[in-house]
Amino acid sequence: MNITSINPKTAAIEEDVAEESTPEEVDELCRSAAAAAPFLHELRRAGRASLLRSIAEELEASRDRIVAIADRETALGTTRLQGELTRTCYQLRLFAEVLEEGSYLEVTIDHRGETDMGPRPDLRRMLVPLGPVAVFGASNFPLAFSVPGGDTAAALAAGCPVVVKAHPAHPATSRLTYDCLARAVSGHGGPTGTVGLVFGQRAGQLLVQDPHITAVGFTGSEAGGRALFDLASARPDPIPFYGELGSINSLVVTPGAARKRAEDIAAGYVASITLGGGQFCTKPGLAFVPADDAAHMRKALIDAVRETEKVWLLSEGIRSAYLDGVESLAGQFGVELVAGGAPTTDEGFSAQPALFWTTTEELRAADSKVAEECFGPAGVVVQYADADDLAAALNTMPGALAASIHAEDDENELSSRLIKLLLARTGRLVWNGFPTGVAVSWAMTHGGPYPSSTSVLHTSVGATSIRRFLRPVTLQSVPAQLLPAELRDDASSDVPQRINGVPRH
Amino acid sequence: MNITSINPKTAAIEEDVAEESTPEEVDELCRSAAAAAPFLHELRRAGRASLLRSIAEELEASRDRIVAIADRETALGTTRLQGELTRTCYQLRLFAEVLEEGSYLEVTIDHRGETDMGPRPDLRRMLVPLGPVAVFGASNFPLAFSVPGGDTAAALAAGCPVVVKAHPAHPATSRLTYDCLARAVSGHGGPTGTVGLVFGQRAGQLLVQDPHITAVGFTGSEAGGRALFDLASARPDPIPFYGELGSINSLVVTPGAARKRAEDIAAGYVASITLGGGQFCTKPGLAFVPADDAAHMRKALIDAVRETEKVWLLSEGIRSAYLDGVESLAGQFGVELVAGGAPTTDEGFSAQPALFWTTTEELRAADSKVAEECFGPAGVVVQYADADDLAAALNTMPGALAASIHAEDDENELSSRLIKLLLARTGRLVWNGFPTGVAVSWAMTHGGPYPSSTSVLHTSVGATSIRRFLRPVTLQSVPAQLLPAELRDDASSDVPQRINGVPRH
Repeated sequence: MNITSINPKTAAIEEDVAEESTPEEVDELCRSAAAAAPFLHELRRAGRASLLRSIAEELEASRDRIVAIADRETALGTTRLQGELTRTCYQLRLFAEVLEEGSYLEVTIDHRGETDMGPRPDLRRMLVPLGPVAVFGASNFPLAFSVPGGDTAAALAAGCPVVVKAHPAHPATSRLTYDCLARAVSGHGGPTGTVGLVFGQRAGQLLVQDPHITAVGFTGSEAGGRALFDLASARPDPIPFYGELGSINSLVVTPGAARKRAEDIAAGYVASITLGGGQFCTKPGLAFVPADDAAHMRKALIDAVRETEKVWLLSEGIRSAYLDGVESLAGQFGVELVAGGAPTTDEGFSAQPALFWTTTEELRAADSKVAEECFGPAGVVVQYADADDLAAALNTMPGALAASIHAEDDENELSSRLIKLLLARTGRLVWNGFPTGVAVSWAMTHGGPYPSSTSVLHTSVGATSIRRFLRPVTLQSVPAQLLPAELRDDASSDVPQRINGVPRH
Repeated sequence: MNITSINPKTAAIEEDVAEESTPEEVDELCRSAAAAAPFLHELRRAGRASLLRSIAEELEASRDRIVAIADRETALGTTRLQGELTRTCYQLRLFAEVLEEGSYLEVTIDHRGETDMGPRPDLRRMLVPLGPVAVFGASNFPLAFSVPGGDTAAALAAGCPVVVKAHPAHPATSRLTYDCLARAVSGHGGPTGTVGLVFGQRAGQLLVQDPHITAVGFTGSEAGGRALFDLASARPDPIPFYGELGSINSLVVTPGAARKRAEDIAAGYVASITLGGGQFCTKPGLAFVPADDAAHMRKALIDAVRETEKVWLLSEGIRSAYLDGVESLAGQFGVELVAGGAPTTDEGFSAQPALFWTTTEELRAADSKVAEECFGPAGVVVQYADADDLAAALNTMPGALAASIHAEDDENELSSRLIKLLLARTGRLVWNGFPTGVAVSWAMTHGGPYPSSTSVLHTSVGATSIRRFLRPVTLQSVPAQLLPAELRDDASSDVPQRINGVPRH
């Protein structure tokens, strides 16, 4: 079957990009990836930092063409895609700095000595790469969470070859950005197996089951991600599966914030749920507002939705799932469609934003659809009676990537309670803001309890995302001349070390 | 069904310890554990450090009784069990120090600022506890890897309540040490749900599937561990399963070492494979020796086995599996039983050490049993022709906890090659030593690629084992007065922090 590039604004096929990868091709790419692992190892930290920077340069050298093709395939708009390319390059360069700094290796040295449990040998611990990593491109970030995105950058930084499964919603962008990766690898004298690209759903399944693959990075739907997670877990040798699946992200407006800032919060909320067509995994899909000031907040939100234009969705599948989701919510007892939501008549994959209104009682109803993710520009506002009612509702929410609180300075008791409640089921807590921006930095967490992530212990964005593709090893009593440079006592180690329990830089 | 305490030296039931836990009891204990989580959180780091030290004191206060009962149930000997109790207490106290030092929280702060990808909000990351943890006691370490062992200590240090599934080979020791945990919890004003204890295989399965349980620590057989791993992965919300399963640990003797130190290595090897009845997951089950000096090494090994006494195994099941393993190896074409291995005639669970001899050719044969774990005091010596033959054999080995190299100083080229080969499939590499001692320290790694571990990213021994029960969260733009003390800029944070990418202590 051909993999085609489709224009969301017309639903027309623009070009045939590739054929589905055959099982033989997947096997060959995974073998080549395993064979490329020594190249990345021998490049060492400085060489891999240089490789990551080269990839950024290659992407920037093709910036106009990448943005044009990505816009044609995703309709996300050139401004957003320019920003996403900048973010993608920034990410690669941040990881280069992380490599150079070196504490990501967690070098830990215990010198030989006596302890209360007897003599202890010389022990030296560091992290080493897992091996070839399978990366699944996400539909909604054709650059930053796709072929040249965070999972690829983190795996290469760790020293792991990568085989990417291209997302069918942007195959031409995948091919074009893959070429940038391949040129950078070639410029560093690397074998072609260092980065690979496959097309087609079957190829993706084979990738997860391939014996050479040692870990998987995935961003996508809960159904698709869980199916692949199950394959990874059922292998004769199960491997880590880092999946970012669906996420219902709660946003709480306290009584104080509702009284003082209803219009600002309403405008920010509607902008956040419609950003990128509402196709963000961090979209604050559920807003909790106090019943006491509901009328004012409701008017402000309805006005904001009415001022919002239709959006383009990424694919026919996403559009029909969105329309189904809107219909299902509108049909639920006690849930009211208060603005937008009418189907559009365009030829392409357009959709109207939709705002729903309900109460905590309906949210908690046994057959409620309120806490199911509706991917696309929809938001559900849930009215709560008081703090206990709000707490009871939040306690029923599934794991999420991000939660937000809008509160005033004189509400610290309520705020403390909310922070505790929300952090128990989320990876990031945003204060007086909206969660749809995810900064690439040292301190970011993008992950959370299931189903927002299949691996609650890790983040898929930020410096520590590299940790997903590393495992610890300890060398016991090995002579200095046989140690990796980073594990030595002398100046040939240029990384921070913890020595006998004490951190040294 | 009653859970009975059996004496391995007589096979007699010494006492009825408990009844199998009912599903209702498991459910109730897991609920109580979830309800106890806030207590451990509010104890904070200092309080949990104090709790860990209290547990050590309680264990030491009951030292004589614990050692006597454990010896009656395991026949491991009082010297070993005294040492194991010391190790268990040392571990608890080391974790208390790790809590006080605080860098295990990985506090990372990015101040608000401008970046090449635009403005960045204030971001503060730290690790928080997962929630209730299920711990499965191991048969072979009734203290250090059982009720008061490493998994329990790490989970409590992290701030996670624990429900332990008692191992049926030492239920009385489990009950006695559980009482020590419970007294320490009570002394700190904690609810009884902070630590729980269940008996029976069905209770263990229910524990892994219980919705309140957020992670599992397991040490045991590959079959049992994989079955529980599969249950954990098949949950509606899969949870991390930290299993240490079987491990075939390779020990390589280079030509130089074989020439110079055959007797010493042979004596050390046989001591290592018979230590604790050969019931160590780090037992060096496979020794690779050069064909050129094989005769000398063979004589030294056979002599060492002949000087070794029979051992007591932990249970009837372990004894019969050992006898089956010896029989199966002895029956394999090209594998020769060269010393020991005769069945004993005692009433209890005794066994003779056994040494087998074979070649790399037999190891690589399609139906070979050589690389299957034979739990108990058996070792297989594999003769290799040259470095390439050795490398080819090592490349077929499954993932392991520990590998060892015995080499001379003038063999650095071969040693470098061996280190690289062995580290690719193991968590710890021991130089001129034996792997059966696993020090509790900052730099230890006890884990490795599957099947030695179901979670290759982590260790189950040492300071970083606490990381298994923690997940990252990031607080974005949260005002200082609402932050946990560790995340603040001021002196109320007493932990190392990484600030804008730079580590500070």
